Amino acid sequence: MSGGTPLPGGVLRDVERSALARAVVLAARGLGGTSPNPVVGCVVLDADGAVAGEGWHARAGGPHAEVVALAVAGERARGGTAVVTLEPCDHTGRTGPCSGALLAAGVARVVLAVADPDPRAAGGAATLAAAGVDVVTASVEDAREALRVNASWLLAQRLGRPHVTWKYAATLDGRSAAADGSSRWITSPQARADAHLLRARSDAVVVGVGTVLADDPSLTVRDLPATGDDVADAELAWRAPLRVVLDADGRTPPDAAVRRGGGPGAGETLVLTAAEVGRGPGGVDLPAVLAVLHARGVRSVMLEGGPRLAGAFVDAGLVDRVRAYVAPALLGQGSAALVSAVTGTSMDAVVRLEVDDVARVGPDLRVDLVPGHE
Amino acid sequence: MSGGTPLPGGVLRDVERSALARAVVLAARGLGGTSPNPVVGCVVLDADGAVAGEGWHARAGGPHAEVVALAVAGERARGGTAVVTLEPCDHTGRTGPCSGALLAAGVARVVLAVADPDPRAAGGAATLAAAGVDVVTASVEDAREALRVNASWLLAQRLGRPHVTWKYAATLDGRSAAADGSSRWITSPQARADAHLLRARSDAVVVGVGTVLADDPSLTVRDLPATGDDVADAELAWRAPLRVVLDADGRTPPDAAVRRGGGPGAGETLVLTAAEVGRGPGGVDLPAVLAVLHARGVRSVMLEGGPRLAGAFVDAGLVDRVRAYVAPALLGQGSAALVSAVTGTSMDAVVRLEVDDVARVGPDLRVDLVPGHE
Ligand SMILES: NC(=O)c1ccc[n+]([C@@H]2O[C@H](COP(=O)([O-])OP(=O)(O)OC[C@H]3O[C@@H](n4cnc5c(N)ncnc54)[C@H](OP(=O)(O)O)[C@@H]3O)[C@@H](O)[C@H]2O)c1
Ligand SMILES: NC(=O)c1ccc[n+]([C@@H]2O[C@H](COP(=O)([O-])OP(=O)(O)OC[C@H]3O[C@@H](n4cnc5c(N)ncnc54)[C@H](OP(=O)(O)O)[C@@H]3O)[C@@H](O)[C@H]2O)c1
Repeated sequence: MSGGTPLPGGVLRDVERSALARAVVLAARGLGGTSPNPVVGCVVLDADGAVAGEGWHARAGGPHAEVVALAVAGERARGGTAVVTLEPCDHTGRTGPCSGALLAAGVARVVLAVADPDPRAAGGAATLAAAGVDVVTASVEDAREALRVNASWLLAQRLGRPHVTWKYAATLDGRSAAADGSSRWITSPQARADAHLLRARSDAVVVGVGTVLADDPSLTVRDLPATGDDVADAELAWRAPLRVVLDADGRTPPDAAVRRGGGPGAGETLVLTAAEVGRGPGGVDLPAVLAVLHARGVRSVMLEGGPRLAGAFVDAGLVDRVRAYVAPALLGQGSAALVSAVTGTSMDAVVRLEVDDVARVGPDLRVDLVPGHE
Repeated sequence: MSGGTPLPGGVLRDVERSALARAVVLAARGLGGTSPNPVVGCVVLDADGAVAGEGWHARAGGPHAEVVALAVAGERARGGTAVVTLEPCDHTGRTGPCSGALLAAGVARVVLAVADPDPRAAGGAATLAAAGVDVVTASVEDAREALRVNASWLLAQRLGRPHVTWKYAATLDGRSAAADGSSRWITSPQARADAHLLRARSDAVVVGVGTVLADDPSLTVRDLPATGDDVADAELAWRAPLRVVLDADGRTPPDAAVRRGGGPGAGETLVLTAAEVGRGPGGVDLPAVLAVLHARGVRSVMLEGGPRLAGAFVDAGLVDRVRAYVAPALLGQGSAALVSAVTGTSMDAVVRLEVDDVARVGPDLRVDLVPGHE
């Protein structure tokens, strides 16, 4: 297969395109487990184009995807093709460089979807090419899903701060809690399970002390969906996310649920006060918060409200993605608004987003949005 | 075809099922034009099952769908099958009974989707069967779209009041206007054109005087979508809907745009004050308003806000369908809430709906909802 007719640069064979799609599915198993590393999936095809080995990166310090896949493929890798979601690393970190492993295994061709923007890790493609391996980088079109699965990590590499997904549950009229403060169970069990999967795949979950005082949430991962297209057969590699409370004046009660441990779903707890990160509009300084989290290896943050903190993140331009669970219900005036701090009072001050995806989850709608291009 | 092997009662032949789907498309062309009559579509198949004629009811007083289709089919109707979305009428109104027309044309079989609940019109099926015609009523499954296309008229027949669709445009955080009152252009041109199609298909458009004073809308039909799956090839038969302002104390300005005529899209104007319909919670008495509209032949009402009137309709249980256009944007606190009068202040007082359909219209989302079953 790899020994067949040479193709024009950047063009993937059909079997490689399928292998890349599979490699993305494998990579996604690592979401929530690999930070500060990216997620990576690898499929090794033998010289005839048959799948010889699969691997993914499950946790920082664990073996890289290529090494796992090559070990499974064994001698069948020789003369074959390695298809990887991200450029193989070229540096000797906690594991040896993947470029060296691929050369040692004798692969003839490497198909990579996304070049590594990390200067310490990049160079794998060049090393491989210099050693005579046929190295192909996928087109943007072919790389779309590989970019998406590493969106958080890639943004964190680019901006030097974690990627922030603001997740909320609200009614059709944008109410996040009733006027008496009750907000639990706005959405369905199906939507809550779906949100727990997002939690599992995040490195940190962030709330304001207002939510702690109102709802006393535990912020643990539980009730993951029993089945679902992307988890049905997956060995998920998530670690319980860091639980972060932004709390300028240290009002989080000593016995708050968020401080309690218990089970694999309960992550460490970090209460950030003004003493630690300084003050900013509305409470603590948000860029400083993200810097602290980044330094701890957090690459993906799930912001879980409430309206005050969400408004502050929106106003600071620090929301990279919105995951909205919308319940088909009306709560009416008096109930809590979804965001409170969005600046401005006219249509000119509107925060424009773009719908990226819409799905029905049980009786609810799930809408994914990204900041719009003005 | 009709002379072939007899089928068990209620079972449609494939060609009849296709004809019924087509008849529903034809019926939909009459939406907004036929009240107080239902919309009806008819496809006549010849004895071999080939389409011999099509017809639809375009306006009250105009020819019925069956009569149109039979005229097109001519002699080919003899021994053939008439497929109709609604039971053929049996009474001599402005036109002769359709049952008689079908018998005169010599059709051997009649497939009807929905029985006529109107006691004056019903009986057509019995008359035809008594005359030896093979009459088949579709199963609920087969009749689904035929029920949907006449949903307004069927509800009006059942409840003796028009069907009410509350249409609104709002941001993701449920804001229907910015804090300074600006609300135009919340949604995209595509969404507005889509909404104009709904207007064209409604018998009346209703607003509160608050909207008239804030926005001075004309409530005319214009900017219909140039193309679209259901209008692409259609001769739409709509009439400009009646423009209704609910205005207890007669505050609608004499020069309000809603009072102005001009063009085929501008319907008659009706300003209903407390002197005419009495007072109710929040303004005028809403059941009395619907009774007045029903008496004028209105079977479908499009309620176009604002928050006060919408809340009053919701609270009165008088919203049968919600058509939400949701812009992917955040306006934040201070801006106008979507509904203001929904009773209650806790999650117990929530108004539950069910999502019936979700679609993307330009950059916006269109969500259709119906009242939920508690
Ligand atoms: N539907 C949902 O998705 C959802 C999610 C979460 C919460 N909620 C509801 O939201 C309500 C709580 O609302 P909330 O707005 O008080 O909760 P919040 O946004 O979680 O907490 C707000 C508090 O966080 C602290 N904070 C620290 N830094 C901040 C900053 N830079 N900007 C803004 N706040 C900062 C502030 O207190 P200090 O100044 O003392 O630090 C502030 O009062 C509850 O009813 C809860 O049920 C709903
Ligand atoms: N985004 C959207 O889809 C949309 C649609 C429409 C309007 N709007 C916005 O809504 C704002 C106007 O809000 P609004 O609430 O004042 O408008 P509204 O609901 O159209 O009008 C409210 C007025 O209607 C009259 N009314 C008569 N009978 C009523 C009843 N039974 N219940 C309630 N009201 C009754 C009342 O005045 P009387 O007591 O004097 O009769 C009441 O003050 C504007 O900013 C407009 O731009 C937005």
